[in-house]
Amino acid sequence: MSDLQNLGEFGLIHLLTEGLPPDKTVIKGIGDDCAVVRIGGEELLFSCDAFLEGVHFQRHWATGEDIGHKAAATALSDIAAMGGIPLYALITVAAPPDTDISFLQDVYTGLKHVFSDSLCSLIGGDTVSSASGLFLNVTVTGKGAGGRILYRRGMMPGDLIMVTGHPGASAQGLHSLLHEKDAPPSLLQAHRRPVPRLQEGLFFSGDPAVHAMIDISDGVSQDLMHMAQCSSVSVYLNSGDFPFSPDQIAYGNAGGLPALDAFLYGGEDYELALAVDPEQADALQKRFSSMFPLPLTVIGHAAAGDPELWMDGKTIKSGGWDHFQELK
Amino acid sequence: MSDLQNLGEFGLIHLLTEGLPPDKTVIKGIGDDCAVVRIGGEELLFSCDAFLEGVHFQRHWATGEDIGHKAAATALSDIAAMGGIPLYALITVAAPPDTDISFLQDVYTGLKHVFSDSLCSLIGGDTVSSASGLFLNVTVTGKGAGGRILYRRGMMPGDLIMVTGHPGASAQGLHSLLHEKDAPPSLLQAHRRPVPRLQEGLFFSGDPAVHAMIDISDGVSQDLMHMAQCSSVSVYLNSGDFPFSPDQIAYGNAGGLPALDAFLYGGEDYELALAVDPEQADALQKRFSSMFPLPLTVIGHAAAGDPELWMDGKTIKSGGWDHFQELK
Repeated sequence: MSDLQNLGEFGLIHLLTEGLPPDKTVIKGIGDDCAVVRIGGEELLFSCDAFLEGVHFQRHWATGEDIGHKAAATALSDIAAMGGIPLYALITVAAPPDTDISFLQDVYTGLKHVFSDSLCSLIGGDTVSSASGLFLNVTVTGKGAGGRILYRRGMMPGDLIMVTGHPGASAQGLHSLLHEKDAPPSLLQAHRRPVPRLQEGLFFSGDPAVHAMIDISDGVSQDLMHMAQCSSVSVYLNSGDFPFSPDQIAYGNAGGLPALDAFLYGGEDYELALAVDPEQADALQKRFSSMFPLPLTVIGHAAAGDPELWMDGKTIKSGGWDHFQELK
Repeated sequence: MSDLQNLGEFGLIHLLTEGLPPDKTVIKGIGDDCAVVRIGGEELLFSCDAFLEGVHFQRHWATGEDIGHKAAATALSDIAAMGGIPLYALITVAAPPDTDISFLQDVYTGLKHVFSDSLCSLIGGDTVSSASGLFLNVTVTGKGAGGRILYRRGMMPGDLIMVTGHPGASAQGLHSLLHEKDAPPSLLQAHRRPVPRLQEGLFFSGDPAVHAMIDISDGVSQDLMHMAQCSSVSVYLNSGDFPFSPDQIAYGNAGGLPALDAFLYGGEDYELALAVDPEQADALQKRFSSMFPLPLTVIGHAAAGDPELWMDGKTIKSGGWDHFQELK
C-alpha cells in the first residue's frame, strides 16, 4: 500500500476526505455524482471531471471537437445523474506551448457546443502550460429542479432496476480503436460523442416512482454496486434482459469485445441507471417512451440483503474503470 | 500565430470565450479574479486554478505539504481579491500510478489545513491517473459579504493605489531556488506558503473608500495594468514608496534578483492591490493597521488617461507570468 496503483481511486478519495470537519450547509459531500449544498434557499450541485491526453483520449482517435464534446458531456452527465438543471461551467485547459491553435479551437468548439445545447454558461477557468499533453478539467454547477434531487442511495428492496440506452456500446467503440478493428458507427459514436441524459434525468427526478439514480461512467456492475452499497440492498440482474443493440451483438460475435462484458465492466456510457417502485414501473416506462426516443429497460431488481451483485442466479464481481488499477 | 507560444495565455482565454451566449444571471464572466453569478438572492463567486508539476512547482523544492498549501492558498486568493467569503472547494488530483502515498497524504494535509483555516468545505473532486507528473486543479466558490463585491474595474482618477505586504518576495524566493542561491527564510516562505488575504479582503469590501481590488498573482505591473484597463485610467507609481522588506533589499544587493524587478514583474505573491478614495485613505490605513499586522502601503495613484503604467515620471511596460510565453 505504498503507491497509488495499490491504493486505487477510491482509496485515494478516502485519503482526501478523512478528517474533514462537518458543514451543515453540505447536504451531500464527496461520494455521489455531485456534491449538494444549500445556498440561499436553493440546492446547488457541484461536480468536476478531468480529462488527460493518453489516459482519457488519444488525438489520433478523436478530433479536437470530439474531445471537447466528451469532456463537456461527461461533466454534465453528473448533473443529469442527480436529476438537476445545469447552470455554469468552469474549464481549466493545460496545453504544451507548441499546441496547434486550430486543434484547441476545435476542442473549444466541442465544449461550447455541448454547453450551449444544455443552456450551461461558461463563466470561468484557468489556462496554463503543460510540459506534455493536453489536460482539461471541467467543473459544472447545477440546481435541483423543484427541490427534488436523486441520489445513489434510496434504492428499496423490490425496486426494479432500469437503464436508458445501450450501455456497453462505448467500451466496444473504445475496444475497436485500441485493437484497430472495424466497428459499427453507433459504437464509435457512443465512445466519441456520448450524450448527457439531462432531459431524461430531469424527467426521472420529477417522478416519485424513481427512488435512486446514477450515471453509468464506470460500467454497469460497478455503478450498480455503488447504488447497492449506498442503499444497503442486494442487486439481482437478468442478463437476458440487457438492452443490446444489433450492433453490440454483431461486434461481439465478430471476435470483438462481447456485449455482455462491455455492459458489465466497460464504462463511459453516461446512460442513467435507476431504481423504480415496481408498482409504477409500467406507467413510468409508458410516459418515458412517449417523450424520449430512447430505450428504458428493466434489467433486474433490488432485494433485502448485503450489498452484492447477482446475475442469473450467481454472484458476480463488480468492477470497472479504476484509473490507478488499470494503467499498468 | 499557429501555436500557443505565440498566442499566449490571454489570447487563449479570448478563443475560449468568443461567441458565448449571454446569461442574465452572470454578473461577471471570465475576466476578473472570480466569476460572479446571482443564485437564489445570493451573489456567488467561482474560480479555478491549476497546478502542474514542473510548471508551478518542483518536488525537490517543496514538500507535499507546501504544494497542497500553495494550491489551496492560490485558489482562495481569488475569493480574497473580490472581498468574498469562501464556501466550498472541489479538487482534481491527477497523479502517476507509482506516486508515493505518503507524498500525496502530505499534499492533502497542506490542502486541508488551508481550507480548514479558511472555513472552506471540501465537497468534491475527481481523482485520475496521469502519464507523468502531479496535476492539481482547485475550484473554489464563495459569496459576497453583505452584498458588496470588489472588482478590477472601478478605479477612479485620483484614487490612491495601495498594496498589502511585500510584493516581490515570492519571486525572489523562486529565484533563489532556481539559481541555488542562499535566501532569507522570509522569501522562501513567501514562495512556498503564501497566505490568502481573506480577512483583509473582507475588511476592504466592507469599506466604501475602496473602489477596486485585485490579487497580485502575475506581478504588480501586470495586475495593475489589468485594473487600469478594466477601469480605463492611467496608473502612476513611485518606486521610492514600494514596501521592500530588509530581506528583499539584501537579497537583491547580494547579486540576487533585485527587489524592484521582483515587485514589478514577479508574481505569486497573493497580496492585494486596491484603489482607494484619497480623502479616506489615511483613515483606512489607520483602521487597517489597528486590525492586521501587515503593511498597507500607498505606492501610487490613478489619473485620467489611457490605460498605461508610469513609474517615476516614465512609462514602463507591464508584464509578468504568461504561461505560454515564458515556458520556452
